Amino acid sequence: MTQLMTLEQTRFLRACRRETVDATPIWLMRQAGRYMPEYRALREKYDLLTLIKTPELACEVTLQPIHAFDLDAAIIFADILPPLEGMGLKLEFVKGEGPLIHNPITSLADVERLITPTPEEALSFTLDAIRLTRAQLQIPLIGFSGAPFTLAAYAIEGGGSKNHEKVKAFMYCEPQAWHLLMSKLAEVAGHYLYAQAQAGAQALQLFDSWAGQLAPEDYRRYVAPYSRRALEIAKAAGVPLIHFGTNTGGMLTDLRDAGGDVIGVDWRINLTQAAAMLGDQVAIQGNLDPVVLFAPWDEIALRAKAILDQMRGRSGHIFNLGHGILQHTPVDHVRRLADFVHEYSERNR
Amino acid sequence: MTQLMTLEQTRFLRACRRETVDATPIWLMRQAGRYMPEYRALREKYDLLTLIKTPELACEVTLQPIHAFDLDAAIIFADILPPLEGMGLKLEFVKGEGPLIHNPITSLADVERLITPTPEEALSFTLDAIRLTRAQLQIPLIGFSGAPFTLAAYAIEGGGSKNHEKVKAFMYCEPQAWHLLMSKLAEVAGHYLYAQAQAGAQALQLFDSWAGQLAPEDYRRYVAPYSRRALEIAKAAGVPLIHFGTNTGGMLTDLRDAGGDVIGVDWRINLTQAAAMLGDQVAIQGNLDPVVLFAPWDEIALRAKAILDQMRGRSGHIFNLGHGILQHTPVDHVRRLADFVHEYSERNR
Repeated sequence: MTQLMTLEQTRFLRACRRETVDATPIWLMRQAGRYMPEYRALREKYDLLTLIKTPELACEVTLQPIHAFDLDAAIIFADILPPLEGMGLKLEFVKGEGPLIHNPITSLADVERLITPTPEEALSFTLDAIRLTRAQLQIPLIGFSGAPFTLAAYAIEGGGSKNHEKVKAFMYCEPQAWHLLMSKLAEVAGHYLYAQAQAGAQALQLFDSWAGQLAPEDYRRYVAPYSRRALEIAKAAGVPLIHFGTNTGGMLTDLRDAGGDVIGVDWRINLTQAAAMLGDQVAIQGNLDPVVLFAPWDEIALRAKAILDQMRGRSGHIFNLGHGILQHTPVDHVRRLADFVHEYSERNR
Repeated sequence: MTQLMTLEQTRFLRACRRETVDATPIWLMRQAGRYMPEYRALREKYDLLTLIKTPELACEVTLQPIHAFDLDAAIIFADILPPLEGMGLKLEFVKGEGPLIHNPITSLADVERLITPTPEEALSFTLDAIRLTRAQLQIPLIGFSGAPFTLAAYAIEGGGSKNHEKVKAFMYCEPQAWHLLMSKLAEVAGHYLYAQAQAGAQALQLFDSWAGQLAPEDYRRYVAPYSRRALEIAKAAGVPLIHFGTNTGGMLTDLRDAGGDVIGVDWRINLTQAAAMLGDQVAIQGNLDPVVLFAPWDEIALRAKAILDQMRGRSGHIFNLGHGILQHTPVDHVRRLADFVHEYSERNR
């Protein structure tokens, strides 16, 4: 209980609630990953799904960046796709090609066959990893789930996609199947988020990485009701909800209106402009281009400074990248970025 | 001369100049392409580069959609990458994988080696195709070039790219080489556009397909000066300039400020919002999601109607997709879309 009360007053959770902070909190999407030598060493011994499905290993990976850098939150090491596996899709991570679903959804019958197991039934490995990690961690832990649209995109495209034409065509041509699919995904994602908070996560992020590939009116009509449903289920857990997408410059207010206490913003929009669109009833997370971390340090510092200056005086800014950290990112730049964000923001409240 | 004067009064060129029109003009990016059986028949006999480099064939392909549909402009059949070939890069189109550059740029020395031939030296096949096509066409013909950043992205990544990390890292880490590369590309693109107008094109489009992958401040600092230079060179030809990008919801005003009489907008932003950002000193081209053409006709009509309603009363709207037409698009939907845009907009001025 004492630890939980202390956690509640950390700068990360205070910023989620738009309360004043001593310095701007920072965490980085995919902060545990292949750019770290410790992680690569483990991946030489275990494949990705083994790391995710073995709670002790997932816990170890989750803690790697926390031991290496001065970050303000950990995010449980997992992937957005295992929930689809629990629903009946056959998932594989193919070396060099990314995720592959061997039986993608093509019809209403496929959607009807999808089951909606409880998180304890289908995703106990991640819930166990959260329990293990919580016991070893002094800072807030973030749980997460893919959002219904992003999960639907993988389930229908069968993997990554350039134009997302299969998922959008399904959405336009099969309204009944679409509604059923998105309803099932909203339930699965929402209960999965809720269960992660129950297992010990202090905040939850809904990843809608592909939402920004939609026209805003399609997002509102075909997607937002289901993101809203997932976030409503998660909200009962009583922890801050982060709602993240990329390419959302033309639909930020729609993303906000679907729910979330914190809105994730990518680098494709100026943060001052994004803040003006979002208003002051949500916190903002973002928005450095992950590729900036490949630049010389002086350039990185300049860009981090620009983001902090834009957010100065706003209650509720969490520094992050606009999307996941990239594989060849120099480790030392991550370390210096975390320190710089704290030092600069503390000096320039 | 008489034909040229008549062309000047077509609804496409009038809309480019923000003059009143009888009905909204429409053309579609990549309107000559694999969704058409006539095109696939030719591709069974010739590979892509042969079609592009044989003026008679390029002319034939350019005219295919004009014969099939009621479109208001033709666009010369070409690709954005041959200018890179003329500069010394080894280009190949690999079946199923897209373009591949065998000697991508990795250093200042590579950039210094790039030559900047005149369009007549390096790209005479496209200029000849324009001359041939102009003689057989009753409507305006559009010439085009890749923009400096999009060309640089291919030249440095060596092909398509998910995160564009090589080109951005080069931009951040090699400022001298970047400046030289972008200067050369701006000259090549600008003179190529100019030469296409001289050869008989009535409008010119600068394709900056990847500009929207940049943070707005990076676009302004590393890219806009070179797009501006290319457009300034082209402007001397005295024909309307279309400036196109995707994922530009957060940087539309920056794109506009770099030049162009018409700004291309993709579907990721509502057109009313885009128009408010762009102001009334430019025409707007867009913005139907290409995947909407896979939907049932009633849905397509609803979406086309929404776009036309949003632009009603604005001088200067050219109906188009937000990006190129996709391979499996139903031909009949393209035909009906062109007719619908004309009929609906004529009835609802």
